[in-house]
Amino acid sequence: MERAVRDAAEEGLDGLLVTPGPDLLWLTGYRPTAITERLTLLVLRRDADPQLLVPTLERPDAESAAGAEAVTISDWRDGDDAYATAAPLLLSDGVYAVSDSAWAMHLLGLQKELPDSRYSSITERLPMLRAVKDADELARLQAAGAAADATFHEILKVPFAGRKETEVAADLARLLREFGHEQVDFTVVGSGPNGANPHHEAGDRTIAAVDMVVLDFGGLMHGYGSDTTRTVCVGEPTAEMRDVHEIVRVAQQTAFETVRPGIACEEVDRAARRVITEAGYGDQFIHRTGHGIGMTTHEPPYMVEGEKRLTVPGMCFSIEPGIYLAGRFGVRIEDIVTVTADGGRRFNDTDRALATVH
Amino acid sequence: MERAVRDAAEEGLDGLLVTPGPDLLWLTGYRPTAITERLTLLVLRRDADPQLLVPTLERPDAESAAGAEAVTISDWRDGDDAYATAAPLLLSDGVYAVSDSAWAMHLLGLQKELPDSRYSSITERLPMLRAVKDADELARLQAAGAAADATFHEILKVPFAGRKETEVAADLARLLREFGHEQVDFTVVGSGPNGANPHHEAGDRTIAAVDMVVLDFGGLMHGYGSDTTRTVCVGEPTAEMRDVHEIVRVAQQTAFETVRPGIACEEVDRAARRVITEAGYGDQFIHRTGHGIGMTTHEPPYMVEGEKRLTVPGMCFSIEPGIYLAGRFGVRIEDIVTVTADGGRRFNDTDRALATVH
Repeated sequence: MERAVRDAAEEGLDGLLVTPGPDLLWLTGYRPTAITERLTLLVLRRDADPQLLVPTLERPDAESAAGAEAVTISDWRDGDDAYATAAPLLLSDGVYAVSDSAWAMHLLGLQKELPDSRYSSITERLPMLRAVKDADELARLQAAGAAADATFHEILKVPFAGRKETEVAADLARLLREFGHEQVDFTVVGSGPNGANPHHEAGDRTIAAVDMVVLDFGGLMHGYGSDTTRTVCVGEPTAEMRDVHEIVRVAQQTAFETVRPGIACEEVDRAARRVITEAGYGDQFIHRTGHGIGMTTHEPPYMVEGEKRLTVPGMCFSIEPGIYLAGRFGVRIEDIVTVTADGGRRFNDTDRALATVH
Repeated sequence: MERAVRDAAEEGLDGLLVTPGPDLLWLTGYRPTAITERLTLLVLRRDADPQLLVPTLERPDAESAAGAEAVTISDWRDGDDAYATAAPLLLSDGVYAVSDSAWAMHLLGLQKELPDSRYSSITERLPMLRAVKDADELARLQAAGAAADATFHEILKVPFAGRKETEVAADLARLLREFGHEQVDFTVVGSGPNGANPHHEAGDRTIAAVDMVVLDFGGLMHGYGSDTTRTVCVGEPTAEMRDVHEIVRVAQQTAFETVRPGIACEEVDRAARRVITEAGYGDQFIHRTGHGIGMTTHEPPYMVEGEKRLTVPGMCFSIEPGIYLAGRFGVRIEDIVTVTADGGRRFNDTDRALATVH
């Protein structure tokens, strides 16, 4: 919390307003049982001690959070005006960074109560707040990555042909849990044409011979995220499938080799995109190359054109180029990578050659 | 969508801005696979047809939504400025109601891009948008309630004494699924002193003889919510336990009998609170009496002091007074109730007398 306030001050902000979700959990260890319409607000100011406002009936939970001793807890009752109760905790003309996923309803309540206050999102003003991981966080991300890799090794052994995507997805979820995940967030099984839709999850389609299958899966282990993708083929791939897969593999490898401290995040995107564009598939690579990862699967820094911020040792993000051939198949390869003093280190390291499943 | 725009116009608004979550699902049938930092925005204006802006890579999902034909879909690519892309869909000086749970980051992006536009939350300006349920919605809520009631009947048969709260919670979750829920949202098992914390979920405490146990559970069935609470006793209750339980039972019954069309929502709260206050436990009833329910467990209307809006046939909400004796035990009794032409009808109707478990 001290560092957050210092960073905010350097940005010209009076402080941070943090609502339930990863920011609050990271700063205080407090996770309400649900994120609801009732306002919970951590106020971090450079000129005052940390204050946590909670609904009265959630006060016992807040008081038992790991970081409760570092904050002064106050509460508001159902029927009170939560924003009027929060107002005295803020400067009436303060400038704050607010949690990205804070409810608009709560932000609007504060804006109405304090018309001279101003707000930006944490991602806009303090995107690096949680981006550089400490040793404990790196260990958790590495363990989550190893569990995802173990899941991939096992999924290669299950039958694909003749089963529905949802069945393979259930296998992925079961394996992630067996290898230690407490939460499974996504189990994409995109077979054949479904693989050409990067956000397809898993559907009723029955997987068939010579299908390419995108497997993209992850969740939380010890509170930190995993996220890896491999694309496999059911039986022998065609020459085109091999070629497209190889282009994505080279793009992913090239982007990985770009990683070192002090490069603009967009350079990682450019490195992958250049390979794919030169191979003639630039229009089929329809998303950014990567996203930061930590207590959330998607967080700054983003590996995307226009992101000029520089990499720093301890940052962790995905490198996941893809090619999507509408109506036919898709290929994506993804690892979580951390920036080290002398380059990049992968938290996923299963074989990136095109694997065959049965 | 037409009615939403009409309601907005009557409120003096130019339209609604809807982001992923229950509002978007209710209006268009579209539920993105995840709610993320990528902007998805439904723009409903009185002077234009519905527009849905989505990230490029989620476009196939949006196009396959039930209501896709009723909206014009456009998309933005990673690396584009999503808010600049959204701006032409809005009036530069428009006044909009925005989804309560829209990310602050997205609202701030729009406010920055269109500094003359103005926003309020849907709950502030159009709280009744989803509050009055149609026949199909009522049937779903009734079915969800019946499944929760069947769960309560079965949970009375499982052993309590000597098992952990989390084990009984797992039984509740299993039963809700067996009786048709596709999603379990909460399974509160608050035994002994844990019952005095209304937001306690279920912990490692081993349930013992003469414990009062608050059981509050629900989830989604056919997309609509269940939410019911009964408090049971392990073996024979003490006279005090019986007395406190009876006060809550009478409070809940009295509030239920208040329900009819055209009363202020706060009257339901006052009816329950009066009973508990007159019995000397007013300070131990630390939350509002109820909340609306539909595609979300908590939504307007709220049964709380200060809510002057009037009940209308088809509204559905909880009535759930409680008494919480810190460090000792808690009692809460909760049913979902719908307003009918001539009174209230319960969707939960298991016995409200104090049940004994073993």
